[in-house]
Amino acid sequence: MKLRPAQILVLGFATVILVGAVLLSLPVASKSGESVGFLNALFTATSAVCVTGLVVVDTYTQYSLFGQILIMFLIQIGGLGFMTMTTLIFLILGKRITLKERLVMREALNQLTLAGVVKLTRYIIFTTLIFEGLGAFFLSLRFVRVYGLYRGIYYGIFHAVSAFNNAGFDLIGNFRSLTPFVEDPLVNIVIMGLIIFGGLGFSVIYDVFTIRNFHRLSLHSKVVLTMTVFLLVAGFLVIYALEYSNPKTLGSLSPAGKILAAAFQSVTPRTAGFNTISLPDMSLAAKYFTIFLMFIGASPGSTGGGVKTTTFALVLMMIYSVITSKEDVEIYKRRIPMDNVFKASVITVMALLQVLSVSLLLAITEGADFMSILYETVSAFGTVGLSMGITPHLSDAGKVLIILTMFSGRLGPLTIALALASKKKTAMLKYPEERILVG
Amino acid sequence: MKLRPAQILVLGFATVILVGAVLLSLPVASKSGESVGFLNALFTATSAVCVTGLVVVDTYTQYSLFGQILIMFLIQIGGLGFMTMTTLIFLILGKRITLKERLVMREALNQLTLAGVVKLTRYIIFTTLIFEGLGAFFLSLRFVRVYGLYRGIYYGIFHAVSAFNNAGFDLIGNFRSLTPFVEDPLVNIVIMGLIIFGGLGFSVIYDVFTIRNFHRLSLHSKVVLTMTVFLLVAGFLVIYALEYSNPKTLGSLSPAGKILAAAFQSVTPRTAGFNTISLPDMSLAAKYFTIFLMFIGASPGSTGGGVKTTTFALVLMMIYSVITSKEDVEIYKRRIPMDNVFKASVITVMALLQVLSVSLLLAITEGADFMSILYETVSAFGTVGLSMGITPHLSDAGKVLIILTMFSGRLGPLTIALALASKKKTAMLKYPEERILVG
Ligand SMILES: [K+]
Ligand SMILES: [K+]
Repeated sequence: MKLRPAQILVLGFATVILVGAVLLSLPVASKSGESVGFLNALFTATSAVCVTGLVVVDTYTQYSLFGQILIMFLIQIGGLGFMTMTTLIFLILGKRITLKERLVMREALNQLTLAGVVKLTRYIIFTTLIFEGLGAFFLSLRFVRVYGLYRGIYYGIFHAVSAFNNAGFDLIGNFRSLTPFVEDPLVNIVIMGLIIFGGLGFSVIYDVFTIRNFHRLSLHSKVVLTMTVFLLVAGFLVIYALEYSNPKTLGSLSPAGKILAAAFQSVTPRTAGFNTISLPDMSLAAKYFTIFLMFIGASPGSTGGGVKTTTFALVLMMIYSVITSKEDVEIYKRRIPMDNVFKASVITVMALLQVLSVSLLLAITEGADFMSILYETVSAFGTVGLSMGITPHLSDAGKVLIILTMFSGRLGPLTIALALASKKKTAMLKYPEERILVG
Repeated sequence: MKLRPAQILVLGFATVILVGAVLLSLPVASKSGESVGFLNALFTATSAVCVTGLVVVDTYTQYSLFGQILIMFLIQIGGLGFMTMTTLIFLILGKRITLKERLVMREALNQLTLAGVVKLTRYIIFTTLIFEGLGAFFLSLRFVRVYGLYRGIYYGIFHAVSAFNNAGFDLIGNFRSLTPFVEDPLVNIVIMGLIIFGGLGFSVIYDVFTIRNFHRLSLHSKVVLTMTVFLLVAGFLVIYALEYSNPKTLGSLSPAGKILAAAFQSVTPRTAGFNTISLPDMSLAAKYFTIFLMFIGASPGSTGGGVKTTTFALVLMMIYSVITSKEDVEIYKRRIPMDNVFKASVITVMALLQVLSVSLLLAITEGADFMSILYETVSAFGTVGLSMGITPHLSDAGKVLIILTMFSGRLGPLTIALALASKKKTAMLKYPEERILVG
């Protein structure tokens, strides 16, 4: 039996998660020497491999050093694995791009040979290590002063890996995430930088570093960079305005701290999952706005999740075309093929249907308020990891639902669907066409 | 200057609403003899013409007989006007159907001449009067016994008009809607019947009454009927199960009353807006499920709102095709043209974006909880009229937002967009194609 790419991805991820869950459920993985229980271990392993960061138990308080380092490795495998695997599988197969296949960097790196594959993989690993190494160095400068030499260096490495892979796991303890460092420029800027670069996707980083001229970049890279800057700036302005006078979030900070915290809170929903201010204390409008950002997420082929910046951009441009009665969807003087636009809208609608269905089920299984349920669902789907605090109190059914949501959110509903589907059939018989009145 | 069809619709509706608002703000329209205020009158007129049923003031308590009858006329103009205008405008123009134009019954009634137009209009008015007349007669049988002869007959007519046009306005008083009649089979069955027939759309009613054989119906009619039955049955089962033991809704009713109330509560979100049980007392899951039903709404060219049953059906079938790796979207042995499917997904995404944006703004302007805000927004967008009770307490900004949402929900975001857009341009220059990686 020959596995199709989507099936390789799904089975590969599932295997890593299961192995991770078994190891994390060992007593030696827990600080207390008592097993955390298989469901909680499965939750943690899924959250780590899918670089989500939602936690049912506090990482620092619950897990031993062995458990913590295992989680770090799961994050690295998950982040790197997804980046390389999605990139490679489709390049190796060299499939023609259709509505139902993912295009990965065909334009950026064409004519791939086996030598090219090895080179590409090496390039991706090298890039990852450079970013994580630099991040770990700068973070250690601060953490050594807080936690001492060894623990400080260890914390630098762990949080650099967690940030570049958009995982959002932390070792600060008691579910506090990075709140103790809310006004620390060094920690904030390094973490934000790692998140942003990790969320661009390898092909864009490659494009930018080799071409160095915006006008000559691939259309994909241009759209990713434009949307990223737009979402970061808009996110900063909206959160700064909405939370400026909220005494429980930005209100009590210094002027510089306000700017830093609002910037961090615009970066992290896409889709890192760290936080420096108290999320449940944010205003209703700011929480809701954060849900939007989490849903959009990062860019394709990156360590981040969500429906992706480019998908959102195409949907916006599609609406713009309809409104202005244009025949084609055009961006930066390029015409986007209709099946490309169509795929973006299929992904968006599928993602929305999934988020809505899961949150409807959680509304039945959990006793929480609606905003918390929707927030947690989108956070899981977008592999974000921001939380209203209900995750540690989920029922078993709720945990299973969130585990499945993280998994399909990481691989994309489309990939899961393709993995489950039987092989593509070409219809023997074409039925006659007939229209339906819509809208 | 020649107006385009979308502009005629938008300007026509706006004019009727403004005239209605001016009349309703006259002191003589109020029971107390004091004007209700222009903003409240504008809200009521918009709600009536857009057959929504959301109210900032109680219709019976606030408005004089003159005001009430005016509201009934606005409902009739709105319901009938939309049905005939959407049907006619596009038939008269005989436009080729593109992504950007609405198809109305081209298949059902082809080769339309001016004589045909007059005949069609007469047919629509005749059908409406038959349904409303029968409904008014049966409702009067009950209402005469409760309210006396004259008021009973008047109530029969008012509520028949309100139900067939999916308007949801009532004269029971104190925002109670039809709750006093929760266990009354006659009122329930007549109102449900009017809502369902009103929500099918004229072309389907015509099709069914002339052809009388499911297999020979147009594909459009088949899809409308299938989805309508499916949504009614599914809605009934879900609400019955979720609310069965809720003492504040179904729990306190007799076995037959439970069935009647659950049935009613599955019919009314699409998109009538009457209620027989207390909506704010429903469980979180049932409220959320109701939001789904409200969003989907009724069928195209009908008196109901929402994204429409056929739009939802096409989106579901599109996802099914992607999952099963089929090349085409097929329903009942017919292939749906790709631009038809594409339009359905554009409408869905536009509707979602609008609902999300409006509820985000309401989260800023109003002090209500998130579920109530989302519920009220979808209710306004789908011209449903069900309410968590926050509408009478809206801020002025909130009222304006809901007014705009009802208006664009009734005409469809696409129609509004087309009315605002400049004339269709054929691009002089085709840009080269380039793909973007999505999802
Ligand atoms: K994350
Ligand atoms: K209504």
